Amino acid sequence: MNSDDLFEKIKAKRSYLCIGLDTDPEKIPTHLRSCADPVFEFNKQIIDATYQYAVAYKPNIAFYEALGPRGWESLEKTLKYIPRDIFTIADAKRGDIGNTAALYAKTFFQYLNFDSLTVAPYMGEDSVKPFLDYTDKWVILLAHTSNAGSRDFQLLESKASGKKLYEEVIIRAMEWGSPDQLMFVVGATQADRIASIRKLAPDNFFLVPGVGAQGGDLEAVSKYGMNRKCGLLVNSARAIIYASNSSDFALAAAKEAGKVQEKMDQYLTRYL
Amino acid sequence: MNSDDLFEKIKAKRSYLCIGLDTDPEKIPTHLRSCADPVFEFNKQIIDATYQYAVAYKPNIAFYEALGPRGWESLEKTLKYIPRDIFTIADAKRGDIGNTAALYAKTFFQYLNFDSLTVAPYMGEDSVKPFLDYTDKWVILLAHTSNAGSRDFQLLESKASGKKLYEEVIIRAMEWGSPDQLMFVVGATQADRIASIRKLAPDNFFLVPGVGAQGGDLEAVSKYGMNRKCGLLVNSARAIIYASNSSDFALAAAKEAGKVQEKMDQYLTRYL
Repeated sequence: MNSDDLFEKIKAKRSYLCIGLDTDPEKIPTHLRSCADPVFEFNKQIIDATYQYAVAYKPNIAFYEALGPRGWESLEKTLKYIPRDIFTIADAKRGDIGNTAALYAKTFFQYLNFDSLTVAPYMGEDSVKPFLDYTDKWVILLAHTSNAGSRDFQLLESKASGKKLYEEVIIRAMEWGSPDQLMFVVGATQADRIASIRKLAPDNFFLVPGVGAQGGDLEAVSKYGMNRKCGLLVNSARAIIYASNSSDFALAAAKEAGKVQEKMDQYLTRYL
Repeated sequence: MNSDDLFEKIKAKRSYLCIGLDTDPEKIPTHLRSCADPVFEFNKQIIDATYQYAVAYKPNIAFYEALGPRGWESLEKTLKYIPRDIFTIADAKRGDIGNTAALYAKTFFQYLNFDSLTVAPYMGEDSVKPFLDYTDKWVILLAHTSNAGSRDFQLLESKASGKKLYEEVIIRAMEWGSPDQLMFVVGATQADRIASIRKLAPDNFFLVPGVGAQGGDLEAVSKYGMNRKCGLLVNSARAIIYASNSSDFALAAAKEAGKVQEKMDQYLTRYL
């Protein structure tokens, strides 16, 4: 799936919504807890209910790892259940030396068949390249994240270039992979920065977390972040999947996702 | 296990060797491949053979993840098998926002009961703190890694402080946790830098990868890196665990580990 394919999906659904499948067993409605695999059952019903409004699903791997081997089984079943025309993101933030990175690539791209993986840039080029060797898959590199700690190192200004660390990451990474394989994580809580990051990387997709529970502003993100192929996947997790914690959870999730999609429809008209 | 406890173990075994359990099913001797769990069987025999020479074991989690749910089972069994007086390191290089970091902490510190976890610093303080909330566990933060890509961002010099990024990481992190909970990853392939990093963090343990297959120099690391409590855990994986790939693999691993331990014994006398 290249960037044109992704844009086609966005146009067809009038949506650039990514739904975070951060499924916490303690937040699953009680009536599902007696199922053989409550996490998968929850995901399945969320996917069925929200599929029409979303172009991507993003399980954060921490939620599955925390459950041990059966967490991996739930994840595997979820991946197989997601319709193949939906873009899938393994939010794992991996980053390790070459031979280890190659193993992570095998896990997420071959074994689990994700379309993309989030990757941390700290260890540099040889920790990222093994993922880019899968030419039909995507690396989504952390650039400017949405959390408070993003200020600790990402804003450090280089003496040599005058650029901030996250800008250096973007500039260097653009030499490693094309906009058909490389996205950047750009937090929505810094919407004012999205315009400058868009100038730096005019053609790359941005994965934008932080809208919803974390307080980011969808309109500002859309206005300042969109490019000619939309170039945005905006993630929402808690605000959608935990919209209700009773038997109507799937319906409530669909309503929330539908509301976001309606706004995205407007913003696509307004800002594309 | 605090830094005094760790130092006691180092003195008792005259060793600061950490053995990397980077167990690749394709490199396991053929006679083990018919076992119910070849990865665990290999680890078990390596542990039995090398235990007397090592103070720590470090499974790189990528190797287990790549095997799906049964990889997690092998990892879990391995952790239970490692004698409790040995320091255990989950080499997972995790780093995510607060609520997700808390889940990773639960996985590695509670569920698998590791003593420590390697963590990537890119996302800053709130991505590291949830691990430090486990006051009897350790964070091993990536500072200056051993791979070629370490030059891409870790050496970037800050305009404000004149410090390099990896120095900024060390300085900031020392405010987050004490030397009884916080180690740094310092690659052995840059032995000349170890002296300056030691000045910056006089009391912290360093986990040093890159000796052995990656070419680092053990004596230089020991000479320039040791502090008054040794302060070093030097990792070797491939050179030990794959010393032979036939039926004598455990014996060959013991011999290699024994050779490293003998050198460490000398260096403890010479440089402590």
